[in-house]
Amino acid sequence: MQEIRIGFGQINPVVGDFAHNSKQILQIMNDAAGKVDLLIFGELALCGYPLGDLSYRADIISATQEALEQLVAESAEPRLASLTVVLGHVSAAATHSDQQSSYASAHNSATVFSGGEVIGRYDKKYLPNYDVFDDWRNFVPGSSELLFELQGQRVAVAICEDIWHPEAPQRDELANAGVDLLVVPNGSPYTRDIQSRRRNAARSYQRGFAIAYANLAGGQDDLVFDGDSFLMGKDGQELYRAGMEPGLFITETKELEPVLDDEPQRLYEVLVTGLRDYCGKTGQDKVLLGFSGGIDSSLTAAIAVDALGSQAVLGIGLPSRYSSDHSLADAQQLANNLGCEFRVIPIDKAHVAFEDMVDLKGLAGENVQARIRAVTLMAISNSEGRLLLTTGNKSEIAVGYSTMYGDSAGGFAPIKDILKTDVWRLARWLNASRGKELIPMSSIEKPPSAELSPGQLDSDSLPDYNLLDDILRLLIEKTATVDEVVALGFERELVSEVDSKVRAAEWKRSQGAIGTKTTAVAFGSGRRVPITTRFGKL
Amino acid sequence: MQEIRIGFGQINPVVGDFAHNSKQILQIMNDAAGKVDLLIFGELALCGYPLGDLSYRADIISATQEALEQLVAESAEPRLASLTVVLGHVSAAATHSDQQSSYASAHNSATVFSGGEVIGRYDKKYLPNYDVFDDWRNFVPGSSELLFELQGQRVAVAICEDIWHPEAPQRDELANAGVDLLVVPNGSPYTRDIQSRRRNAARSYQRGFAIAYANLAGGQDDLVFDGDSFLMGKDGQELYRAGMEPGLFITETKELEPVLDDEPQRLYEVLVTGLRDYCGKTGQDKVLLGFSGGIDSSLTAAIAVDALGSQAVLGIGLPSRYSSDHSLADAQQLANNLGCEFRVIPIDKAHVAFEDMVDLKGLAGENVQARIRAVTLMAISNSEGRLLLTTGNKSEIAVGYSTMYGDSAGGFAPIKDILKTDVWRLARWLNASRGKELIPMSSIEKPPSAELSPGQLDSDSLPDYNLLDDILRLLIEKTATVDEVVALGFERELVSEVDSKVRAAEWKRSQGAIGTKTTAVAFGSGRRVPITTRFGKL
Repeated sequence: MQEIRIGFGQINPVVGDFAHNSKQILQIMNDAAGKVDLLIFGELALCGYPLGDLSYRADIISATQEALEQLVAESAEPRLASLTVVLGHVSAAATHSDQQSSYASAHNSATVFSGGEVIGRYDKKYLPNYDVFDDWRNFVPGSSELLFELQGQRVAVAICEDIWHPEAPQRDELANAGVDLLVVPNGSPYTRDIQSRRRNAARSYQRGFAIAYANLAGGQDDLVFDGDSFLMGKDGQELYRAGMEPGLFITETKELEPVLDDEPQRLYEVLVTGLRDYCGKTGQDKVLLGFSGGIDSSLTAAIAVDALGSQAVLGIGLPSRYSSDHSLADAQQLANNLGCEFRVIPIDKAHVAFEDMVDLKGLAGENVQARIRAVTLMAISNSEGRLLLTTGNKSEIAVGYSTMYGDSAGGFAPIKDILKTDVWRLARWLNASRGKELIPMSSIEKPPSAELSPGQLDSDSLPDYNLLDDILRLLIEKTATVDEVVALGFERELVSEVDSKVRAAEWKRSQGAIGTKTTAVAFGSGRRVPITTRFGKL
Repeated sequence: MQEIRIGFGQINPVVGDFAHNSKQILQIMNDAAGKVDLLIFGELALCGYPLGDLSYRADIISATQEALEQLVAESAEPRLASLTVVLGHVSAAATHSDQQSSYASAHNSATVFSGGEVIGRYDKKYLPNYDVFDDWRNFVPGSSELLFELQGQRVAVAICEDIWHPEAPQRDELANAGVDLLVVPNGSPYTRDIQSRRRNAARSYQRGFAIAYANLAGGQDDLVFDGDSFLMGKDGQELYRAGMEPGLFITETKELEPVLDDEPQRLYEVLVTGLRDYCGKTGQDKVLLGFSGGIDSSLTAAIAVDALGSQAVLGIGLPSRYSSDHSLADAQQLANNLGCEFRVIPIDKAHVAFEDMVDLKGLAGENVQARIRAVTLMAISNSEGRLLLTTGNKSEIAVGYSTMYGDSAGGFAPIKDILKTDVWRLARWLNASRGKELIPMSSIEKPPSAELSPGQLDSDSLPDYNLLDDILRLLIEKTATVDEVVALGFERELVSEVDSKVRAAEWKRSQGAIGTKTTAVAFGSGRRVPITTRFGKL
């Protein structure tokens, strides 16, 4: 094994931007020249992943083919001659599986090339179709193996689910064929325990061959590919591990960073990456958000500053007649701590105008304040070309504790997959890790309130967040039934009420902004439940 | 064949409401007693379809099983003794296909029962995974046939995609087994040409056996199941066709209504059904919407009145300083014609307040008016418990010609899958079919305008709607590439610009209200494309 010098081309592609992606790939090929024998890129690195239904389009497939041919031609350059490249890309499919319709017409492929020549192409066999993955919808499965020789070693290729799939029937064939090294391009998005799961998947797939697991880097809509490419020796020992960031990682360097499963640091970096890449890839460089003085907007602001720089972030204080004094003071303190611009726009003029126009008793009177704030923020978004961030956390999005077209308004929701108790945990970790009070302690410590009526507290209408989050973790992330949660010792009435609220808020979530997935079941592209259902309705 | 008297139990189930669904089923069983030998219900009629990821839940599966056992027990009643029932439902699955992960753990089944005994169960073999269908994600494929004898005839069961699938390899086996009648429960949602497509699917599947095609009725989120159950003789001749509405349809009656592919009448009835059932099934009986005097809100109002009654519909005129005189007059006329309540709330007070609070030059000044209207409408929605309807058509949703959290706000979007030129066509048809001016002619004939700045017309920023809709039909509904559209004679610059606008508006659509699907590619659960992509970006 030691004879093959392996490099991971951990690029951050933009879906459909072939000039951009090819440039990154070529740069890494050049960087790797002379230092690496086998250079492995992630799944669909050339066209970007996931493509969604863009994979149905003949123009995407032909543009990918053209870009691939150009890179193969480039590899004929004498200085790249000793490099063998494994590159993921979409390709045209002629046939279908018996079970498939004729909609999908593309393979999820990886081509091996060297010295200007194609050595072979492998098409992904196992097409994940759960959570955020729609591969079975969008691709046609492959049917044959790809083996090649490199420096006297037998090398084979698999793609992502091929080794994750519980059946994984290929592995014995590969072992029988005397494979020494299995090369696996992946499109593996971050979730809290993904680092361990990747290694477990690789180890249980091994049959005496080494595994080079190559992942993508960077954000794509609600997903963040957190790199973490690794090389596992034939004995299941991990020999090398790459970082989260894009770049060329060469396995000669042997130092291993610790696995950071469920660690605040990695989680926070993922949230920063998700926002940075959403903005960068959609051509937006400035954001704004409401600074309420609360913990959600404070953490979101810190993420935005780390993603885009303090100059790019504008905070707006939007006090109403029910706002507490500390909310404005805390918001100002946050802006000072983060070094970003802060403006104050009291909303009472509009509030009075709407009182004059419509009846604002009860809930209507609470919601109108949140909506006036959204109108104000969107006006600034329109006139200054700034992306509005919405600051809702997963707990409130789960139970519908938000105002539609009010605080839920925005183009991106950085912490939508972070439960409230984790918001606090991240805020405390952030202050500790920076060695200073970035997020005001008062914002961390005060009891949560929407401040939409006098003296209002979240605890007036919701259970304690520790309890709520425990129940939500089970109901949503573990997809437990009410009975199953009750069996763990929770009160039935409370669990049923939470479950019922979660279902009733489905229509709100269906109109929610996208935001970074961090858990097994996020409120994003991977959650597909009907709005109209009476199951579990109280 | 004539010996078996067939009935279609075309029920309108609510997802997860077993009491409600079982009651409908039992009612129809009782109605059919003595008149029908074989009573066929639609796909997943007992639990509702589509279930989405609810199919992962053990509690849904056990509740279905319980409801099924109860219905089987009921069928032991002497007066039901001569009835054989085919009923669609979800059921627990033990194994998986090689290609599947372990997430799905249910079959999409149909059980045949009679006289208190189960004759057998069939599990759907071909699981559609395109457009709105996620069956491969949510179900495990079945692996065996179900044949039974009834009055000396051999009867077999297939479910929906089993006969739609292009390969459809079962048909020869069925013919070899001497099948006389194939019974096919379907969950087949309306699209413009679906009636012809259903008959073509059945005919190309036939191998000398008759086909009894049973569909569901009613709306479920963005889908409307438009009934249309039919019996096709062994020679491919259609013998009986049911209507759109829920109920028991007995094939002894031989009269055939004409197929109404792409006819305004059926399309309009589908839109009415979609809204009626969304409201009814989610427990809402009153709606409101802005009456702008334009054609989109006028058609939406007419649909709402037909769905819920004129008493249930509230129109609000929300004139701004840029509103024309005719817009309020036309809105008042519409309310008079429809017999629904109409209130006028000028928005200038709030407009002035926001001018005082923020800079409102250009686009910000246009959008703020649409957003003030949304805040006003949502306040009334909150205080009166009325569902807000949003009135955007498919043309403007396609190119992003709408204000986020403004005119796009609402819980349901009745005409979101109707292109602007079809909005006009439907309005003219509606007036003609009712023999009076329901929708004011002035609303039909005036040039479209958002009226957000002085003298503004849609044609200032969009191509003529006839041209735009022709291009959109190709780009979206036919998923044509720019090159393919240009090859049909359209100007490249224009097609590229439209294509680019469509992509840029993906983030807006990702937050859009659900609404009834009427075409092959709607902006609903069946469209899955990334927000972040630079493909086709100008």
